[in-house]
Amino acid sequence: MRFTKMHGLGNNYIYVDLWQEQIPEEALSPLAIAVSDVNRGIGSDGLITIGPSAVADAQMRILNADGSESQNCGNGIRCVGKYLYDHALTKASAITVETKAGVMKLDLHIDERDLVSTVTVDMGPARLRRADLPVLSGEPEETALHDELSLNGETLQFTGISMGNPHAIFFVDDAKTHPVEVYGPLVERHALFPERVNVEFITMKNRRELDFRVWERGSGITQACGTGACAAVVAACLHNVSDRGEDVTVHLLGGDLVIRYDYDGHVYMTGPAEEICTGDWPHEPWRA
Amino acid sequence: MRFTKMHGLGNNYIYVDLWQEQIPEEALSPLAIAVSDVNRGIGSDGLITIGPSAVADAQMRILNADGSESQNCGNGIRCVGKYLYDHALTKASAITVETKAGVMKLDLHIDERDLVSTVTVDMGPARLRRADLPVLSGEPEETALHDELSLNGETLQFTGISMGNPHAIFFVDDAKTHPVEVYGPLVERHALFPERVNVEFITMKNRRELDFRVWERGSGITQACGTGACAAVVAACLHNVSDRGEDVTVHLLGGDLVIRYDYDGHVYMTGPAEEICTGDWPHEPWRA
Repeated sequence: MRFTKMHGLGNNYIYVDLWQEQIPEEALSPLAIAVSDVNRGIGSDGLITIGPSAVADAQMRILNADGSESQNCGNGIRCVGKYLYDHALTKASAITVETKAGVMKLDLHIDERDLVSTVTVDMGPARLRRADLPVLSGEPEETALHDELSLNGETLQFTGISMGNPHAIFFVDDAKTHPVEVYGPLVERHALFPERVNVEFITMKNRRELDFRVWERGSGITQACGTGACAAVVAACLHNVSDRGEDVTVHLLGGDLVIRYDYDGHVYMTGPAEEICTGDWPHEPWRA
Repeated sequence: MRFTKMHGLGNNYIYVDLWQEQIPEEALSPLAIAVSDVNRGIGSDGLITIGPSAVADAQMRILNADGSESQNCGNGIRCVGKYLYDHALTKASAITVETKAGVMKLDLHIDERDLVSTVTVDMGPARLRRADLPVLSGEPEETALHDELSLNGETLQFTGISMGNPHAIFFVDDAKTHPVEVYGPLVERHALFPERVNVEFITMKNRRELDFRVWERGSGITQACGTGACAAVVAACLHNVSDRGEDVTVHLLGGDLVIRYDYDGHVYMTGPAEEICTGDWPHEPWRA
């Protein structure tokens, strides 16, 4: 089986082209587990298949390192865009990709070698009602812009935003040194968030730039969280420390993302997609 | 740059064939760091080059994931043997490999597909003097067969063996459940071992089989430690719970090794070598 390993801000997957390879459905989950194991496999966060779609230019499916399937991945879908263009599966720069979370729109930015360097993804609308997260801090149909939670006797202000998944954003003095490992897990499982929550700590450097650290629900501290960066910029615009319709650069541990909270209510994320290597995985029990 | 990823008991490296590839000396260390990074590279314990030797069938060099160079690696050298035979760089089954620790002798065991499945490595002589480790528990020119160390008021018996690197072996009731993470670091840095020590906990199942757990100096708990498995069987023979000249199966976390402490004083280690995948790494700054 031919594969390509790619990453976006260090979030890395093994990509398999289903126009070239046939993999039986029941083989996908064990294959994702096998290739992801850094000791006895290639080593990755999971496996992403890219193949034909009846409703978009391509379909992507995301199998995590534990074999479970994810709905969507902001860092992964940029790599799918790069793969499709660089391998001449499309020559359009505006394309659509079918995911389990719906059809996503991508704009591919092409460099002088005719390869994709960065990709803009329409991440859909920010959802602002408390019921969208959900968060139990007040009237469910209203926004969570100035909500409070108490933690070991401390009262902390947060902003609740849903990007399809729930985020609690805290403006702090210095996101780069904030004790994310202390506050993150306590907020994630705070009683206000019945479905738990992703936790972001942000510091504005100016209206178009912010520092960002994240505690991801179920994963802890990660290098990059695309939906978290989107939620952070939405929160900054709603608090009028950033501007709607303008590009805002978010500095994550793994690198930068550029986020725009546009007037159509959608959030647009631009970030890099990089090819690491190509290869051949010879272990194909389904061919035996 | 073409590469092959291989592992022995989960100890995995990116192997590069210097008959096919030219890599400048100054590029090796940064290349090892780059390919080893699981997020932005392939993901491995390091890089091993296989190339021509003036004194053996091939030379191997081991670059760790941090870019430093190692003298030898028992799991890695088995994969070098498999690579040489499977790629027809030798058709002998008894070969020699030059390492920074000297020339090593290998016996390749070939399966019905004419591929190497397991490899026996002459790991050299066991060194039994206390001065060889060193350990400060008694007369330096004598063996450390029944030595003691005290740890938080407890007195523990150990056997000290050098396989070129120092080992302290503890016979315990059940190696599989022994708290290696508690005792390992305390023994590693005990005042008796001025150069620190690898720490092995073993339980005899019978004269030809033992359970084994290891705390590696500088690495902590690992899946497999070839020299540790050798030291364990030497200790078992010296205490007359195993037999010299006989194969003894050592059950490590990562899988099994078969060790023979022979009458010539050398220790012979037999274990698997497995190919994971082949690929092409396109990032070659030295070609720019």
